[in-house]
Amino acid sequence: MSENHPEYRRDPVTGRWVIVAPERSARPMALSHSKPHFRRDAERDVCPFCPGQEATTPDEVYAVRNGLQWKLRVVPNKFPAVRTIENAEFRSSGDLYETFPGFGRHEVVIECAHHESNPARLTDAEFAQVLIAYRERLKALSADPQTAYVTVFKNVGAEAGASIAHTHSQLVATPIVPDSIRRELETASDYHQRTGRCVICDMLERDLADGQRVVARTGNFVALVPFGGRFAYETWIVPRQHESRFETLLDSQSEELAKLLKDVLLRIDAFLGEPAYNYYLHTGPARTNPLPYYHWHLEIYPRTAHAAGFEWGSGCFINAVPAERAARELREVPLLPDEHVFG
Amino acid sequence: MSENHPEYRRDPVTGRWVIVAPERSARPMALSHSKPHFRRDAERDVCPFCPGQEATTPDEVYAVRNGLQWKLRVVPNKFPAVRTIENAEFRSSGDLYETFPGFGRHEVVIECAHHESNPARLTDAEFAQVLIAYRERLKALSADPQTAYVTVFKNVGAEAGASIAHTHSQLVATPIVPDSIRRELETASDYHQRTGRCVICDMLERDLADGQRVVARTGNFVALVPFGGRFAYETWIVPRQHESRFETLLDSQSEELAKLLKDVLLRIDAFLGEPAYNYYLHTGPARTNPLPYYHWHLEIYPRTAHAAGFEWGSGCFINAVPAERAARELREVPLLPDEHVFG
Repeated sequence: MSENHPEYRRDPVTGRWVIVAPERSARPMALSHSKPHFRRDAERDVCPFCPGQEATTPDEVYAVRNGLQWKLRVVPNKFPAVRTIENAEFRSSGDLYETFPGFGRHEVVIECAHHESNPARLTDAEFAQVLIAYRERLKALSADPQTAYVTVFKNVGAEAGASIAHTHSQLVATPIVPDSIRRELETASDYHQRTGRCVICDMLERDLADGQRVVARTGNFVALVPFGGRFAYETWIVPRQHESRFETLLDSQSEELAKLLKDVLLRIDAFLGEPAYNYYLHTGPARTNPLPYYHWHLEIYPRTAHAAGFEWGSGCFINAVPAERAARELREVPLLPDEHVFG
Repeated sequence: MSENHPEYRRDPVTGRWVIVAPERSARPMALSHSKPHFRRDAERDVCPFCPGQEATTPDEVYAVRNGLQWKLRVVPNKFPAVRTIENAEFRSSGDLYETFPGFGRHEVVIECAHHESNPARLTDAEFAQVLIAYRERLKALSADPQTAYVTVFKNVGAEAGASIAHTHSQLVATPIVPDSIRRELETASDYHQRTGRCVICDMLERDLADGQRVVARTGNFVALVPFGGRFAYETWIVPRQHESRFETLLDSQSEELAKLLKDVLLRIDAFLGEPAYNYYLHTGPARTNPLPYYHWHLEIYPRTAHAAGFEWGSGCFINAVPAERAARELREVPLLPDEHVFG
């Protein structure tokens, strides 16, 4: 294969798949080390995600419009990690060095038309539209039989991997179920076989009963710091009702979820001083029926410390802040009245 | 348990163990974002690892001396991730939220007496002493029946998690086998059951035959860029002879291994502009007999890009540089005559 085409490779020692994507190295890095929301004005002139710059991105696959003006766009990533390849198949060769063409889809959700770097500053309605866009693109990408999984995630700040400040998310549709999700599915399935219950339903029940790890809650959703989280101030947003896939989110719930997510992001911004962070949707694989053992949720990872050799090499993370302390500190953040969504 | 004592916690959704270590947050960070070797002079006055500052570290557990002057010291970490707890046991409770006291040992190898931030600038003899120190502390820590695994690693530069510039490594002895090692052992054992062979012996044979992924080699060791590596320019150093544990390293091999490792680090420094990096020893668990399926090796991870939400969330890494290109580029680095170890 050519050195310039993406491919999947399997590491024979760990069994882990990686995506080798040479084009990603051509990606311009508009952000450098800085506070995520610091260089806003300096970057405004050349932002490829602002109105008037539509020609710098590929044609949109989804949009929300108000008359002629767009409010949200989803476009293919100009520097994709994976790409459309017709009739590609993902079948094991049994070779020591297994490889497949890097097929899949990589899209970007441009979350608003105004140049805003902080998603927590979107209005509730704008953020709800972002969540609806996730749902609609998840549905569309999952319908493709080449897709095994759609990863939905957001990078805020250069240290969290963002190359552009204008608030955006990404979707990556792949013919493999990513390693972490596959392990969650296996562990959750084992738990269900052993107990007849969903492990996340059990976590929710326990966390709501003792309250120590809860950051905020609404009628349908709970924000909690997970008992065994890898990162300091890692926070999960979990629907109270058991659903294995995010695509079941109702329009009527999207603004409630947006409010809770904004509330948590504002608390993280206020308490940790606007850190870089990622969030990541954990949802069931494409085209699966409702799974009794899996429960979708969103995981937020603030970048408070550099993961060191120990973590990268061993897979065992050191978290300096116990979940109960992190939840208490985030709960007690005094938000301004107009930021304070929940009492 | 008190909020200030370290503990192991198991995430029930992934089955992953994390170490919760509140004391780590008290650790002073002498390094900030900068080139790893940039702030050397500014830090020299207060370096806790320099001669004369011995009182700022706990008492040494191992040392190499030349008369009264030490040349290398191993001391307990002042801000340990885990700590000595007599009679602690690691036994599953079966509870949803499993937890154990954070017992284990955390040591620091201060690699030379002079204030040097770049391990590649150690002499061959100095670096060989570092490798011997790894071996001796591995033996000592592995003898403790509380130890299941000893992680040996090095962080160079703040972005790779280093808090002190003076070149040093760390050892962490834990009652658990870290997640990544456990998975390697499982995958390698499966491969051995299927083929009767060691997967790393097979990689070596293939890589030496085609040469594309080899960076440098000596009589007993090979430096290669692994076919399915997670990070751009990730490089492994592998002994040609099958051995499952690093403790089998002979004194007579230590300088040869030091030379090869220095050669690779100099190539990475030269080609990538002295990036932050980690290296990490992958060796068999404590007190195991020679394993036919496992093969010790050292993995070097240059920090060329920030791992983004996709990687952290999905466990699927995007590597922008194919192994064959990375190996060729590192191989072709013109080193200065006195740096050029292998032809």
